[in-house]
Amino acid sequence: MTEDQIIMLPGPTQVPPAAARASSRAMINHRGPEFAAMLTEITENAKKIFKTKCDVLTLTASGTGGLECLVANFVNPGDKIVVASIGNFGERLRDIALAFGADVDFMDFGWGNCVDPKAIAEKLVADKNHEIKAVYCQHNETSTGVTNDIEAISKARGNHPALLIVDSVSGLGAAKFRMDDWQVDVVLTGSQKAFMSPPGIDFVAVSDRAWPVCASCTNARFYFDLNKARASYKKGEMPFTPALSVLFAIQEALRFIDEQGGIDAVIDEHYFRRDVIRAAAQALHLPLVAAEHCASPSVTSIMAPEGVDPKALTGIMRDKYHCVIAGGQGKFKGHVFRIGHLGYVTDLQLISTISALEMALAELGYEFTMGAGVTVAQKMIVERRK
Amino acid sequence: MTEDQIIMLPGPTQVPPAAARASSRAMINHRGPEFAAMLTEITENAKKIFKTKCDVLTLTASGTGGLECLVANFVNPGDKIVVASIGNFGERLRDIALAFGADVDFMDFGWGNCVDPKAIAEKLVADKNHEIKAVYCQHNETSTGVTNDIEAISKARGNHPALLIVDSVSGLGAAKFRMDDWQVDVVLTGSQKAFMSPPGIDFVAVSDRAWPVCASCTNARFYFDLNKARASYKKGEMPFTPALSVLFAIQEALRFIDEQGGIDAVIDEHYFRRDVIRAAAQALHLPLVAAEHCASPSVTSIMAPEGVDPKALTGIMRDKYHCVIAGGQGKFKGHVFRIGHLGYVTDLQLISTISALEMALAELGYEFTMGAGVTVAQKMIVERRK
Repeated sequence: MTEDQIIMLPGPTQVPPAAARASSRAMINHRGPEFAAMLTEITENAKKIFKTKCDVLTLTASGTGGLECLVANFVNPGDKIVVASIGNFGERLRDIALAFGADVDFMDFGWGNCVDPKAIAEKLVADKNHEIKAVYCQHNETSTGVTNDIEAISKARGNHPALLIVDSVSGLGAAKFRMDDWQVDVVLTGSQKAFMSPPGIDFVAVSDRAWPVCASCTNARFYFDLNKARASYKKGEMPFTPALSVLFAIQEALRFIDEQGGIDAVIDEHYFRRDVIRAAAQALHLPLVAAEHCASPSVTSIMAPEGVDPKALTGIMRDKYHCVIAGGQGKFKGHVFRIGHLGYVTDLQLISTISALEMALAELGYEFTMGAGVTVAQKMIVERRK
Repeated sequence: MTEDQIIMLPGPTQVPPAAARASSRAMINHRGPEFAAMLTEITENAKKIFKTKCDVLTLTASGTGGLECLVANFVNPGDKIVVASIGNFGERLRDIALAFGADVDFMDFGWGNCVDPKAIAEKLVADKNHEIKAVYCQHNETSTGVTNDIEAISKARGNHPALLIVDSVSGLGAAKFRMDDWQVDVVLTGSQKAFMSPPGIDFVAVSDRAWPVCASCTNARFYFDLNKARASYKKGEMPFTPALSVLFAIQEALRFIDEQGGIDAVIDEHYFRRDVIRAAAQALHLPLVAAEHCASPSVTSIMAPEGVDPKALTGIMRDKYHCVIAGGQGKFKGHVFRIGHLGYVTDLQLISTISALEMALAELGYEFTMGAGVTVAQKMIVERRK
């Protein structure tokens, strides 16, 4: 039954058929030449998505393991850092930084808002002795469906030497991003979002400016030590046994992205899908969490209307129509539902999702014009596919 | 070309066809009911292999991530621990413990030897104030092909309260093990060894005696925090997005182990395969690293004979005969080669491996009776399959 589900989660996302099949490949020697060739191809293709010439390294872990890696390699115990938060994953970054002994200046911009670059600028201007070693933030906040303006946040640093360290687990490959042009120092993403692959692998890009910080970092780490990963990468290896079947899938998924016209075309489709979902929600008079200017191309958070329990809604969609969307996280639990539209999604799956949403809303007694969301989506898709 | 390789590594190991196919399954919601059902089944089946009624938790990481988990959850900075080492992974455990601030009493029993339980007993008897908080060791040392007598090491503790924390990444499911009967406190294994699955998932079993230590541990950790894993497990979840495709494979691989007559029958086959490889090596006059009484059922380390470069040997086997074995690790690099025989291996693959070894040795000028290894293996297999 699970095999015919439409997965519209903000990760894990659907996997293109060729990538899914690749997951079944026979194991290989992760210290052999076949592995080195695969790792090189994957890394070069990943760099096109990060838009970077910097080192891009791979880790076997979920996104949260990657977040720990961002902290453990670039913060010494007692170091002052800014964590600019707009939701659940900003709070998680804070918790990880505290667990590793950082002195965290937690800037809470509020769930559903984006980071205000001016507030970052003010904070750093006030830090005359350059005690703040790094600014951490999300590129895309999965819990709220808000995308931050990373370029503006980077510029807001002015002449302050703080590193900009960005969690782009649910952003990269879906939302516009240019690591080198925007002078971002460290960027994390995961396999199970816009990389259209199963979970289990993280990618961490490290700028030349960030490497000396990593090299001299005294924090407790071993598995997530990027110095080890960098040394292994030079031998065409990962330091510890990699999640091979996930890498087989990633190799094919990144080829698939190239076949779709490359990352810029794929990102453009993400913004289109976002616009369709938002237009459909508006046609159904469902309030959107994110404002237009910072609405995420990865995931749309929608407020459950009066009298509609998001858990009942997502349950009906899953159990009756085999369409899987997400509920709320953290303080949004019980109040919002979230439609993921990143990664590998077809037009008809987008329409199917809106259709399942409408039917579930009808069953729960919500009053609206049946078909209104589907119709607006159809019109937008017809226009785009002309 | 890699798809027709015989993989005889000490991990990653070959994956049974049903488990390989399962890797390709469509993604599911890792916070949904399908996931909870799968996690429960996997955990119950894993407990049969650990021979435990204790909590068994899953992590998304390679074995080394699991090693870090064993340290970060049960050692406070400054705590005194014993690391009883017999090779590369004992040294790695030491390095991780040092990275996390432990006061390590490193007992080096020598590469190729097993841990002497008497030496452990003496060490603990001398520790009258019970300053040693834990004894760490490998169940099976992958780099040398030596299996420790964990039951004897556990008993050697006498009345000393030190925890016994065992890395069984390459042991569990291949070598005899009884967590509860032997009173082992914490045990780690990985998906890519005798669990016959792709790399990416660890299993950690924690005894009731070890949980309070974990609960009060002050070491820096977040991703590998077992308290979080335990709390999530009670909800049928893993704390962070799991490597789903690897879990799909594990579910089928553990069913496959049951279909083979259960774990005891599967373990018995491992000892048989070990005996075949050792007999073949002896027929070829190749010196074995491990003595009979502690020889590993997972992997056999063989000294390269005079004039035979292990790298050339493994290269010929791989490139000409598509049979992949491992070279040496650490100080054994350039001196030994290793044949993994754990996980999913057929009789004819065992014979094929010996055959490829013979042909490569012949090409490298080693003098021996061609077919001698294969013949002894055939005789043993005929006898067993009667």
